[in-house]
Amino acid sequence: MKPMFMGASTKQGYKIAKKSREIVRSLIDSKTRNLTPEERSIVERIVHSTADPEYADITQISSDFVEKSLKAISEEKDILTDINMVRVGINKYEGIINCHIADERTIELARKHEITRAAAAMELAALNGFDGVVVIGNSPTALLKVIELVESDSMDVKSVIGVPVGFVAAAESKKSLQESSIPHLITEGPKGGTPVAVAAVNSLISLLRTKQDEVNG
Amino acid sequence: MKPMFMGASTKQGYKIAKKSREIVRSLIDSKTRNLTPEERSIVERIVHSTADPEYADITQISSDFVEKSLKAISEEKDILTDINMVRVGINKYEGIINCHIADERTIELARKHEITRAAAAMELAALNGFDGVVVIGNSPTALLKVIELVESDSMDVKSVIGVPVGFVAAAESKKSLQESSIPHLITEGPKGGTPVAVAAVNSLISLLRTKQDEVNG
Repeated sequence: MKPMFMGASTKQGYKIAKKSREIVRSLIDSKTRNLTPEERSIVERIVHSTADPEYADITQISSDFVEKSLKAISEEKDILTDINMVRVGINKYEGIINCHIADERTIELARKHEITRAAAAMELAALNGFDGVVVIGNSPTALLKVIELVESDSMDVKSVIGVPVGFVAAAESKKSLQESSIPHLITEGPKGGTPVAVAAVNSLISLLRTKQDEVNG
Repeated sequence: MKPMFMGASTKQGYKIAKKSREIVRSLIDSKTRNLTPEERSIVERIVHSTADPEYADITQISSDFVEKSLKAISEEKDILTDINMVRVGINKYEGIINCHIADERTIELARKHEITRAAAAMELAALNGFDGVVVIGNSPTALLKVIELVESDSMDVKSVIGVPVGFVAAAESKKSLQESSIPHLITEGPKGGTPVAVAAVNSLISLLRTKQDEVNG
């Protein structure tokens, strides 16, 4: 199979993706000058996926995020997502990508602890000995649960992409992540969601592949 | 299982969804006054899912869209999506939800006709005798292919949710759908994507369930 470029695998798809990337770059060039090349590449992909240049203003990446995430991904650590939409959007990852939202044990935990299923799914992952990268594209309660589990030493998390969407609790949950010591990528305010989460992960996977290709000549 | 409200199935999830819906309503109230209650409900769900009130300005719904879509969904006609992310986001549908993007025959058709896989997946559905609702959340080339297949009487489509995203070809493909005689929902300009597509379908499914509950008392 041919290598993919931003999700494209055919000539026509590749052309569209390439032209789009050029447009994105011109739209957000001045806003991303203070970023590293890797961070810039991630933000470009998010804007490409949403067609919304505002993401160049509201995406905030902690200085250790790229390094910790690329290390975890290169070691094929597990990726944990809050919802299945995010899980199926992740491309070309050799490691395991899990989502426990529909697991019977998650439903049981949610009932027992009177929490959302998305939060219970994080508890289940922690109970299962999770160690890897967490990707939250939808649920503020899942993100808050991850922070709580990490801070009580109950979960081993290398980095968190925390971009839940919504007018209730999303902004607050992302602020909590930003104030934590967890390597993170967030979007300030209510905006975020599946395409943002997926773009960030896929961008990391592409960055790693590019680095590996450079090493292999 | 308890009924879901905007994707929420637990008490905490329900509370968040309800409060969010109130905020959405207050944000877009004046913009949606010219819509029918059903259309308004769809637009509210799109804004809820994206946390982006601009969707109240750019979502355009043809006057026959709700009726034709609800009829198709009540008859459990097939739903066809362009990508798997859209497919897995659709909740509580009794009919079949298909996505052919990863089908071997799609890859073969794409190669043979030198088109994108997303467009080839629409050709495959037409060859398989598709009859139902098409949901395009990502690919302009898939949307253009559907319009072409319908206009050449090669595909039976009851309605199209056409919300591909991107700076290249997306706006043009949605304009073509808008100018066609196909019952449709589109978003003007480059914005759109998986959450918009999923919100529109799930809103239709909820509307139908509400109508059925009313009939059943």
